[in-house]
Amino acid sequence: MEDKQIDGFLLANETDMFYFAGFLGAARLLIPIHGENILYVYRVNYENAIETAKDCRVELLKTGENAEEKAAEHIRKLRLKHVGFDTFDVSSFSKLKKNLKDVSLKPSGQMVWELRKIKDEIEIGYMKKAAELSDLGAKTLAEIIKPEMREYEVAAEVEYAMRKSGSEGTAFDTIVASGTRSAYPHGGCTSKKIGEGELIQFDVGATYQGYRADLTRTFLIGKPTSKQEKIYEVVKEAQEKAFQKIRDNAKAREVDAAARDIISNYGYGEYFVHGLGHGVGLEIHEPPTLNSVSKDVLKTGNVVTDEPGIYMAGYGGVRIEDTVLVHKDKAERLTKANHELTV
Amino acid sequence: MEDKQIDGFLLANETDMFYFAGFLGAARLLIPIHGENILYVYRVNYENAIETAKDCRVELLKTGENAEEKAAEHIRKLRLKHVGFDTFDVSSFSKLKKNLKDVSLKPSGQMVWELRKIKDEIEIGYMKKAAELSDLGAKTLAEIIKPEMREYEVAAEVEYAMRKSGSEGTAFDTIVASGTRSAYPHGGCTSKKIGEGELIQFDVGATYQGYRADLTRTFLIGKPTSKQEKIYEVVKEAQEKAFQKIRDNAKAREVDAAARDIISNYGYGEYFVHGLGHGVGLEIHEPPTLNSVSKDVLKTGNVVTDEPGIYMAGYGGVRIEDTVLVHKDKAERLTKANHELTV
Repeated sequence: MEDKQIDGFLLANETDMFYFAGFLGAARLLIPIHGENILYVYRVNYENAIETAKDCRVELLKTGENAEEKAAEHIRKLRLKHVGFDTFDVSSFSKLKKNLKDVSLKPSGQMVWELRKIKDEIEIGYMKKAAELSDLGAKTLAEIIKPEMREYEVAAEVEYAMRKSGSEGTAFDTIVASGTRSAYPHGGCTSKKIGEGELIQFDVGATYQGYRADLTRTFLIGKPTSKQEKIYEVVKEAQEKAFQKIRDNAKAREVDAAARDIISNYGYGEYFVHGLGHGVGLEIHEPPTLNSVSKDVLKTGNVVTDEPGIYMAGYGGVRIEDTVLVHKDKAERLTKANHELTV
Repeated sequence: MEDKQIDGFLLANETDMFYFAGFLGAARLLIPIHGENILYVYRVNYENAIETAKDCRVELLKTGENAEEKAAEHIRKLRLKHVGFDTFDVSSFSKLKKNLKDVSLKPSGQMVWELRKIKDEIEIGYMKKAAELSDLGAKTLAEIIKPEMREYEVAAEVEYAMRKSGSEGTAFDTIVASGTRSAYPHGGCTSKKIGEGELIQFDVGATYQGYRADLTRTFLIGKPTSKQEKIYEVVKEAQEKAFQKIRDNAKAREVDAAARDIISNYGYGEYFVHGLGHGVGLEIHEPPTLNSVSKDVLKTGNVVTDEPGIYMAGYGGVRIEDTVLVHKDKAERLTKANHELTV
């Protein structure tokens, strides 16, 4: 805060608040440069916050009381003059501004991301567990899938296996997209029955202690055609090539290019319709961004996805994705589930 | 729009966009007062949007292209002068503003809620299905629960049963909060083992076609104490009393009061630490709000929760909640699972 010349920080994003106070369900968090942090909580979550929130004083908001007004009162009382904020919507922000005419309010969400992007050992431990549970999801799919099962039935079995082993629900809506639907990068899952020989795009994530993992495998029941096999091998090679590039100080754009060049060289460039990956943590999509226009530079402690894909409309698609930890001289796959097209 | 003197509407909230275009995964939606709606979609979701989005033209955003700039370009081209918007964060909004110096931008999220609050027959059909699947969750819990099961294991069985029958994941994080943890209104679920004679607060929701339901039952394995039974009966009476008040034109504040008065009259007023309920639909918490300071008036077609509770810190809590449809002269419970404390 000193560097950025602010003397306080007001947070409204619930994940940011969880990051600092370890409590989900607060209305606002005020972090003054000196003295106690203040977590604003309505009565419904008050007892829980008192017992479980850390590094803060819990301030009760009455029914109907406005969190902005209350925080503004404390900001004035503490004589804070330059206050950073994370992600306010336009109407909350104008309420805040109206109550703080003499205070400069500075959009500073980036400061929080600078912290959240670098995972510490405890966070990495949680993410390893989330990755392990996601691997269990892929293993379960390979064990239970049969022709004529519906996409959502497959999702049910996978999610059940992860949940029973300790996943806190899913990190995002599971994708089981089969046949021509596998050509949608985000196809969700439907009541469509899965046929033999169809590409099945399977994207799943477990959550542990709030931290998420992200894993995609592409499967097929029966014998793949040579075209299916070819696409699969190209994506696999691209994914590995990008993986080899990931390390401290690697430019995200160049990591993306490593995968994109392979896919383009095989003639499938136009079918790789998204960026290579994204950061993962308490949210499923975080900074840094790995795509062809990213200015991000990877740093030790970042956790990112490596997920090239080839999607051919009306035919099908293949994506292979791992959640990867950035080290000084290399990368480490946190998700490790088998790479085999045929189940 | 004519009434509000605006000639266009720009949407950024993903659920609002889903409501109008039936597609999840767009960046922005522009609704001009005359002519075609424009849905802005990045390449990753483009094919899917082309095939499934309705009532709009799909406009492709290139990698790195800014949605605000593109929408601003169309707003200028269409010569829109007064544009409403829903929920922009401060930084997207300033980008938009910078690109539209001669356009008045008007916060108009309320206009969208006026539509979303009133569910039509198709939406009600989806919500009935979501409610039915939530009932199945409660039935499953009653069937499978045994002493020494962990809270998250119970959640796993319940979610599995709902998912296999067609629920699209959970409407929110399932709560299985037992023993003293049942005194937290939002206690989540942990690895705590459930003991005989403990209050078990169970809050679950299924999702169908994007629409959610919300159901809470409080259970107990074994024989309740007279105090547990008493609290349960008070909450049940309060919930029924509020239910009887729900109808077209009822004041939300008075419906809340109907339940609150019962609980207060029995001497438990201080333990009812939240509002009576909230709207439900594509999101789990929507307008209207039912609490002691609400100015909302219920209307035919609203779907709201009726969920009084008594939470005694260090002891335990009871909540009973149904998702309820507002009719002209009465209310209808969409969730119908058994009300029995003992399983």
